[in-house]
Amino acid sequence: MGDESKIRVGLLGCGTVGTGVLRILRDNASDIEARLGVKVEVVKIAVRDTDKPRDGIVPRAMMTRDANEVIDDPDVQVIVEVMGGYEPARTYLTRALNGGKHVVTANKALLARHGAEIFRLADDVHRDVIFEASVGGGIPIIRSLREGLASERIDSIHAIINGTSNFILSAMSTEGHTYGAALANAQARGYAEADPTMDVAGTDAAQKLSILIALGFGTDVPFEKILTEGIDTVSADDIAYAKSFGYVVKPLAIARAHEGAIEARVHPALVPVQSMMGSVRGVFNAVYVHTASLGPLMFYGQGAGMLPTAAAVVSDVIELGRNILRGTSGRIPHLAFHEGLIPQRALRAPAETECRFYLRFPVSDQPGVLASIAGALGARNISISRMVQDDSDGTAPVQVVMLTHEAREGDVRDALSTIGSLPFVRGPIRYLRIEEIR
Amino acid sequence: MGDESKIRVGLLGCGTVGTGVLRILRDNASDIEARLGVKVEVVKIAVRDTDKPRDGIVPRAMMTRDANEVIDDPDVQVIVEVMGGYEPARTYLTRALNGGKHVVTANKALLARHGAEIFRLADDVHRDVIFEASVGGGIPIIRSLREGLASERIDSIHAIINGTSNFILSAMSTEGHTYGAALANAQARGYAEADPTMDVAGTDAAQKLSILIALGFGTDVPFEKILTEGIDTVSADDIAYAKSFGYVVKPLAIARAHEGAIEARVHPALVPVQSMMGSVRGVFNAVYVHTASLGPLMFYGQGAGMLPTAAAVVSDVIELGRNILRGTSGRIPHLAFHEGLIPQRALRAPAETECRFYLRFPVSDQPGVLASIAGALGARNISISRMVQDDSDGTAPVQVVMLTHEAREGDVRDALSTIGSLPFVRGPIRYLRIEEIR
Repeated sequence: MGDESKIRVGLLGCGTVGTGVLRILRDNASDIEARLGVKVEVVKIAVRDTDKPRDGIVPRAMMTRDANEVIDDPDVQVIVEVMGGYEPARTYLTRALNGGKHVVTANKALLARHGAEIFRLADDVHRDVIFEASVGGGIPIIRSLREGLASERIDSIHAIINGTSNFILSAMSTEGHTYGAALANAQARGYAEADPTMDVAGTDAAQKLSILIALGFGTDVPFEKILTEGIDTVSADDIAYAKSFGYVVKPLAIARAHEGAIEARVHPALVPVQSMMGSVRGVFNAVYVHTASLGPLMFYGQGAGMLPTAAAVVSDVIELGRNILRGTSGRIPHLAFHEGLIPQRALRAPAETECRFYLRFPVSDQPGVLASIAGALGARNISISRMVQDDSDGTAPVQVVMLTHEAREGDVRDALSTIGSLPFVRGPIRYLRIEEIR
Repeated sequence: MGDESKIRVGLLGCGTVGTGVLRILRDNASDIEARLGVKVEVVKIAVRDTDKPRDGIVPRAMMTRDANEVIDDPDVQVIVEVMGGYEPARTYLTRALNGGKHVVTANKALLARHGAEIFRLADDVHRDVIFEASVGGGIPIIRSLREGLASERIDSIHAIINGTSNFILSAMSTEGHTYGAALANAQARGYAEADPTMDVAGTDAAQKLSILIALGFGTDVPFEKILTEGIDTVSADDIAYAKSFGYVVKPLAIARAHEGAIEARVHPALVPVQSMMGSVRGVFNAVYVHTASLGPLMFYGQGAGMLPTAAAVVSDVIELGRNILRGTSGRIPHLAFHEGLIPQRALRAPAETECRFYLRFPVSDQPGVLASIAGALGARNISISRMVQDDSDGTAPVQVVMLTHEAREGDVRDALSTIGSLPFVRGPIRYLRIEEIR
């Protein structure tokens, strides 16, 4: 097992997260040593530009432009990959595992696409790959699903795992901003990229949900197959109407276990304003898990940013350090379940989703409208629990807003398609799902 | 390492939690096996009364009145202690460890008093004692402090870890109940014991806080030394005034790191009604941890009850099972830190606490009262941020309620002692601390 007087780390990438890792290892060195029993030392760092100024936190002599120098260094026990992207990250991790290194990665995109292959290799060579930072930043949700909830049969997961989207919807909700203004604000603060598509369209959340589904339910659901709707079509009006009914609009990633199937979807949804999830504001993330034994359980914290993400990476290094010091690996299956011991479940068709719905109809102010809408809904077994209709100013369309009782999504879509073609409908019908989580 | 085809458990005690453990092991058997790789099997159970009916969940042949039969059974690898109390639990665990068993316990009272001795023995004999269920029921907070936050230097912990107290204060807050009515309601629902002292006086929370302090800060603070104030002196009036200022009263257990010292206290406190902690209602628990890198992090869930507690116990059995299957132990120090690597810090004197205060003075409605109060506060550098005075009905005392800016607790006590002796004060002065956690 070699020199056990310290755990030696090689870093691939030294951007925001990598710099954070170095800062935490420096600032919390004594705490980390007290917990692990030995020091953690970064011995080599692969960077794109060795001349870039780095605030004195990165000793020049440690840096190299050649990642293989880090990977092949016989002193390095743990490779930390914080480069992001599919390639060359995938090639590097493969080489690192084959060379006998353990791996920490924060790369959710890589795991969402190539996780199965990487984990299989790690199993074959008896090395561990862990990835706490890939979902929920500094929230120890992956560890909790793999270990803390190991006794549980999970019913459902509701997660706010895209801080950018939560910041935008929160700003629309509390400041009354339009989507555009809230996005511009998020960009100005560095919470949203110049091209925010990955965040606001839901792809980032779908990648993370795919990982949570694997860990929570033992089923492989490729993120591209998850129903994914962005927050960019939520209007300030929808948020105001939701509020008047006691709800707030949140960007949710949802998974639910059914007999033989997994339901998975990413979309904005109404949650009770008084609920724990309704209280998660700004860039904060939260993961709400429900099991038969535990009822609801929630994990809350910062889902992104230099130091929260780096803290998760360093906690992973410490976990690998504990394994290295005990000469063990493979204590926990990479994706929480032993292959072959958990039946793979199919992805449930989105039309089968059952929940309550928020519906907004822009209509002409004329007699019979409500009866037509209610009739079309009723014909598909959709019943209305609450309704509000704006006062008319005689010119603009009147907004008819309804909350339904629980209904099948396929039925709702059919009904809306019928209603959409009626002559009194004066614009696109908006619908949002309601999640009655507490 | 013997037969590794299953993990064999001996159960000491089969009351509420023990029955819950058996139920989870039965109901979630396939999930547990899929996660651990092998089955978990209870092979022997020590009970007080083998004739008591147990819903068919406990095979009669497995039961014995002699705990040593369980402890000494060579087949048993893990002893689960869910008896509670100091003795004979302590003697049994000692014998179990000396006999080479690993131990899971939910017994916070035992750990708060004899933890050091038990953990030392476990280290000596290379066995593990784990205890997730001892704090926060089904919330994986102990695991998170030992592992998920291993990279962190923790600044502070704010915890709602007594569900009974939270239920009572929540009912007073939302239903306007008096303390007595809320307590009776809690007792009727089984949330409070006939003698509720351990819960409402704060002892239970202090025992749990002592464990959180050990795990979070590496310092041993006996629970008897922690400033502990119960919720039984909180009045419906205080709750109503707090609400008018935007706060809600919560039963908090608080610990904070200072240079060379640890601040620790258990008492009801005002927290912002819009905050995450302010949203934790009913019997729910939550632990809010703040670190420099992570900012705030919160864990929320059911802190008591048969199945939540049992779920934590079973997750511990699975953790020990993973160690047994790998032939390892001692991966993580029992109390998170390696002895000798973390400086022990002193307990800070309560007078040194600095926070904002809520003060309520029942006074005669006469000129000069406010000036006298403000003067006595000002003389000790306590400045007032907000004030409200009731309309007088001419007979009853007028309530003067103030929120202070941050002040030193010793100064506040001195000032209140001075004010208490002034002639216009017509009843006991109430003060509550304010915790500005978000």
